Amino acid sequence: MSESIKKLTELFAKFPTIGQRTAGRFVFYLIGQPKENVDELVQAIQELKKNISSCPSCFQSFQAAGKSVCDICANPARSNGLLCIIEKESDLLSIESAGTYKGLYFILSPLVSYRAHVNENLRLPQLKEKIAKGTFSEIIVALNPTPEGKTMAILVERMLKETPQFPTLKITHLAKGLPVGGELEYADQETLESAFEGRK
Amino acid sequence: MSESIKKLTELFAKFPTIGQRTAGRFVFYLIGQPKENVDELVQAIQELKKNISSCPSCFQSFQAAGKSVCDICANPARSNGLLCIIEKESDLLSIESAGTYKGLYFILSPLVSYRAHVNENLRLPQLKEKIAKGTFSEIIVALNPTPEGKTMAILVERMLKETPQFPTLKITHLAKGLPVGGELEYADQETLESAFEGRK
Amino acid sequence: MSESIKKLTELFAKFPTIGQRTAGRFVFYLIGQPKENVDELVQAIQELKKNISSCPSCFQSFQAAGKSVCDICANPARSNGLLCIIEKESDLLSIESAGTYKGLYFILSPLVSYRAHVNENLRLPQLKEKIAKGTFSEIIVALNPTPEGKTMAILVERMLKETPQFPTLKITHLAKGLPVGGELEYADQETLESAFEGRK
Amino acid sequence: MSESIKKLTELFAKFPTIGQRTAGRFVFYLIGQPKENVDELVQAIQELKKNISSCPSCFQSFQAAGKSVCDICANPARSNGLLCIIEKESDLLSIESAGTYKGLYFILSPLVSYRAHVNENLRLPQLKEKIAKGTFSEIIVALNPTPEGKTMAILVERMLKETPQFPTLKITHLAKGLPVGGELEYADQETLESAFEGRK
Repeated sequence: MSESIKKLTELFAKFPTIGQRTAGRFVFYLIGQPKENVDELVQAIQELKKNISSCPSCFQSFQAAGKSVCDICANPARSNGLLCIIEKESDLLSIESAGTYKGLYFILSPLVSYRAHVNENLRLPQLKEKIAKGTFSEIIVALNPTPEGKTMAILVERMLKETPQFPTLKITHLAKGLPVGGELEYADQETLESAFEGRK
Repeated sequence: MSESIKKLTELFAKFPTIGQRTAGRFVFYLIGQPKENVDELVQAIQELKKNISSCPSCFQSFQAAGKSVCDICANPARSNGLLCIIEKESDLLSIESAGTYKGLYFILSPLVSYRAHVNENLRLPQLKEKIAKGTFSEIIVALNPTPEGKTMAILVERMLKETPQFPTLKITHLAKGLPVGGELEYADQETLESAFEGRK
Repeated sequence: MSESIKKLTELFAKFPTIGQRTAGRFVFYLIGQPKENVDELVQAIQELKKNISSCPSCFQSFQAAGKSVCDICANPARSNGLLCIIEKESDLLSIESAGTYKGLYFILSPLVSYRAHVNENLRLPQLKEKIAKGTFSEIIVALNPTPEGKTMAILVERMLKETPQFPTLKITHLAKGLPVGGELEYADQETLESAFEGRK
Repeated sequence: MSESIKKLTELFAKFPTIGQRTAGRFVFYLIGQPKENVDELVQAIQELKKNISSCPSCFQSFQAAGKSVCDICANPARSNGLLCIIEKESDLLSIESAGTYKGLYFILSPLVSYRAHVNENLRLPQLKEKIAKGTFSEIIVALNPTPEGKTMAILVERMLKETPQFPTLKITHLAKGLPVGGELEYADQETLESAFEGRK
């Protein structure tokens, strides 16, 4: 296999969820594409890096172009009393597409996909500063009910409790329970308990 | 293949979740077992049918042996103000093994596994009678958030509303939300909405 | 849960591929069945044990009823020069339903599903005796190309080679290659080699 | 979501096996990468298109750099009496990594992944020309035993038969049979027949 193929296969194999075999298919796919399509891809990647920055307030990606914060942070119609702490950008997209939450966000982890051993990278200092400067009445800890998410939630709550000026903050967590399509028969004990406790 | 093998394969293939191939494996398993083991199985099946009846109050299976209702219905420590309506016996076992619910039950469907088209078999008249005779302050509709479960829930609530003597009954539903181990990124819109609404 | 239910659940959980949860579903299924159906099942199990024995020549199950060997062993139209050695009865059924093999069989393992550590149970002495008494010109070793099957194949071939009166026997193995629906891209090295070597 | 993100997500979603969600993860992955890494990726893609061309003899990708055909076609140690017809480049890589085939190749389809309705794109004219100019004694039709592969095989064989100057060519097919790890019990009828017929 030629060097160019090998090199690009290696780079694609670093993409999230992609192994060696699929990376190879990507390379053959590009080889088979007309030059215009490949140029379009290259240009789109370059545009992305030129145009996209991290919102300094919530850390989601946005197209700056003269703006200082992202559209959600800049939107006066969003409640600035509510802050939803999430792990990663794709969680923000899921919540936005559900469409009912109308407050602000904070993305806690700089990684596309969190791994438990990188606690040192969480944006806890930036979160502390954002809350201190803001006028939040409720902090929604919207981290996944997974082992990694629970670890992050503990670190967030510890920080919130240890900060003297945050005494009156209401801290909430997303409801746990049966998801749509779920079945009692296959639910674990903790989910069932939460489903009974949260009944209404 | 001999008649005896074919006949028993057919009967096992009617067992829930079992197809022709696995039914055949069951038959070969039994052929390979010593006679004592097969006798033990036959005896256990016969004992089951002799000893087990349906509790006339909640419809779970129980070993009558002189008792008129099952151990849960007969237990004075269980709250008789709470009634939890479930689809099938295995849901009752899941809730009991979670261990936090301390009220009574009612099994709505006579089938091991509910199929939407058998509405006529639901025990709605028996449920109506049980509630009329009881002293319940809360009815927990604990049916699965699946299409079948939602259909059943609608039928139960219609009956409750249409019964003149049930006006003060509190009717609740299990919390929907993220299950333990679930992730926001993969949750559907309705689950996310419920998780936000039910936060605490 | 009552004793009768617990007992029968345990017995069903010993069935091949069945776990505790499915075993429980079987029990609830039987509880829900009318008495006639359960009686029919009990009778079919008892008939099976009364009627079915192991063919003393090939070890498949058959309905004796006065016959000394199974229908395949007794069939003069089957070639008595070909012997196909298989692991278990369900392999015989697969080959018969493919319909092209017209020789005799020998089932090597007394178990429904072979596990590598039970070599001592293989019917090697009986196989040796059958070949010695027979007039076979070809022995087809039709054991699975799995680690367990390869272990069994080694034991069979060692026995055949070490038996002084078997020098002229032709020993063959099933072709290895791509199965219908298989793809070169996902085939392992050994399968690809066999597919090339056996091309025609 | 900003235009740059949307645009690149769309382009990644055209990659083989990649859907909208994974395409989005790729974009966030690139946003999170340092500029050097993204530049490295862009450069590798550009190098690929600059350096890689299709071998005019077998149609695999190769780094031309002054060479007229790929390393396999140019290698005098490869038998020029054997031609192996495969669907796509990744099949060639699989066979090469198995390491036993020492003849030449011809890649039949210009697509990374063949779909049955694009018969018009198969390189049948180029194949005909290659065989006419060559000195092949055996053509190995190494197309997948899938419905698509069988369709292609029929088209190839029809062309070979209809070409007057190809009368003495030996045409072979890869052996079908049980793959390594396969089990008789789960094999389909055609695979079993092939496994018996090809025994040795």
